[in-house]
Amino acid sequence: MKTLLTETARQLREKDNILILTHAHPDGDTLGGAYALCRALLSLQKKADVLCEDEIPKAYRFMAQGLGPVSFEPEYIVAVDVASQKLLGESVEARFGGRVDLCIDHHLSGDFKAETVLNDDTASSAAEVVFSLLKEMKIDITPIISECIYAGLSTDTGCFRYANVTSASFRAAAELIDLGADFARLNRELFETKSKSFAALERMALNSVETHCDGLFALIAVTQAMLEESGSRGDDFDRISALPRQLEDVLVGATLREQTDGTFKASVRTNPPVSAADICKKMNGGGHFSAAGCTLGGPLDAARDTLLTHVKNALETL
Amino acid sequence: MKTLLTETARQLREKDNILILTHAHPDGDTLGGAYALCRALLSLQKKADVLCEDEIPKAYRFMAQGLGPVSFEPEYIVAVDVASQKLLGESVEARFGGRVDLCIDHHLSGDFKAETVLNDDTASSAAEVVFSLLKEMKIDITPIISECIYAGLSTDTGCFRYANVTSASFRAAAELIDLGADFARLNRELFETKSKSFAALERMALNSVETHCDGLFALIAVTQAMLEESGSRGDDFDRISALPRQLEDVLVGATLREQTDGTFKASVRTNPPVSAADICKKMNGGGHFSAAGCTLGGPLDAARDTLLTHVKNALETL
Repeated sequence: MKTLLTETARQLREKDNILILTHAHPDGDTLGGAYALCRALLSLQKKADVLCEDEIPKAYRFMAQGLGPVSFEPEYIVAVDVASQKLLGESVEARFGGRVDLCIDHHLSGDFKAETVLNDDTASSAAEVVFSLLKEMKIDITPIISECIYAGLSTDTGCFRYANVTSASFRAAAELIDLGADFARLNRELFETKSKSFAALERMALNSVETHCDGLFALIAVTQAMLEESGSRGDDFDRISALPRQLEDVLVGATLREQTDGTFKASVRTNPPVSAADICKKMNGGGHFSAAGCTLGGPLDAARDTLLTHVKNALETL
Repeated sequence: MKTLLTETARQLREKDNILILTHAHPDGDTLGGAYALCRALLSLQKKADVLCEDEIPKAYRFMAQGLGPVSFEPEYIVAVDVASQKLLGESVEARFGGRVDLCIDHHLSGDFKAETVLNDDTASSAAEVVFSLLKEMKIDITPIISECIYAGLSTDTGCFRYANVTSASFRAAAELIDLGADFARLNRELFETKSKSFAALERMALNSVETHCDGLFALIAVTQAMLEESGSRGDDFDRISALPRQLEDVLVGATLREQTDGTFKASVRTNPPVSAADICKKMNGGGHFSAAGCTLGGPLDAARDTLLTHVKNALETL
């Protein structure tokens, strides 16, 4: 890893006109890593820019603040936190998908084809990998760069709550604070603020929680009507998925989200020893041990029955 | 601080039959600090025990696991995270309040009178101070000791979200993980689990949120009827107090809790630049810049009107 880091740092120092790609439906990590790198390259008097298929959520717009439009023909293309080419999103993939020179990632399952792949799957976030790279490049890490990295690191670890946290993540956070990251403001904005649409959806979701299997399985159904009434967007739903598993004694928490075509996306979260991946695999889905997903046919009653059958089976084998 | 730490470590090494006191209504920090110290002293073949006025909440009972009853006449008494003598609780104060030899604390306002006061107000938690002390004493810090300290550190910082976090807190967390703290399990139990009573109270509370002052002030009222219906206890209410300020654009979030005598306890949380302490001072209460409290006369409408008047005044001067 160290040799690869040194080699990548050397390459980046030599290049100019660098375009940095994030994944579509961007989160704090892909944006934080991309903007930290972009600002570092700009500080070396290079031309650099970030390109994202979708609109940047409000909470992350501070990262781009003060960066004017840049116009250049990209000569070197970097993807940050993009585990596979199609995650770039349709238009970005069509334009640049086959031309990526460097892929910076932390996904165990990452399979992006690029000339250089800097993928550290022991890192809790891509931003942590970017942080190591910037230190290797001897970049002067300014407060705004440290805030971009902190935002990536903290959002990908649920503000240091998830099992992917390592002592290295905590040490990185300590360094970033010492470098001037205003973590108190970031934590408030990223973790202690609920948008009006999320607050409305959360209220409806909590009012509709069902428990099954003697309280070991909790389920929330989010219908198109609820999404419309609350004015919710995609990232609101991601936060709803965390709620059912939080109930005391629950081993499996699931959320069913109605799609516009009438099918349901199931998001399954488990506590040990139950594997969410195993449950979803039975329904042609997949994912990680404690968080996985699949798509189920509607109507809601049919989707619920299918899910309930598979969860029951999983709980019975304990 | 370093000299005091060395001197305290030396004293503790010489003493035996040590009783450690926590504050009443114990939280993760007072218990985590106390049990870490107790286990450290036991590992030196001393007699030591922890005494708490109130029952230990379920989430913290792991700290005492495996420790049998000890019987001894206390010769040296330590208070951990107890900012003033009356916080020990009535019966513990009556028995041991005037006999405390060592006070380990991190409160700026701490005024406990003891022969030795080891109060580091730059530490985010008393457990962090205990951690420094155990390292100074060259204790072999076992996984269970590191978990007690991690529980104190993480709960007093809202799992590293609050403004009292420092880079030293993050470095301490990194060390504790390397020493074997099962932080993933602790985070799940301490931060990702809602008791049935809390979940019920939260649902009622979120259904009753009112906003005033063009959305800058959000208020939740918790009545005796709601507390009874949900089966809630004191620590459930503490978590409810955090909810109103989380709403987007809110600068002042308040919770009114009806007492058995018909008065209301107001808990006020603010975002900068509004001071919760200033608002509560006007109603004969007090507290910190971003979290303060006061008591108001009932009925609910009267309490709400008083609070609303003072919040309006504070918002108008912005």
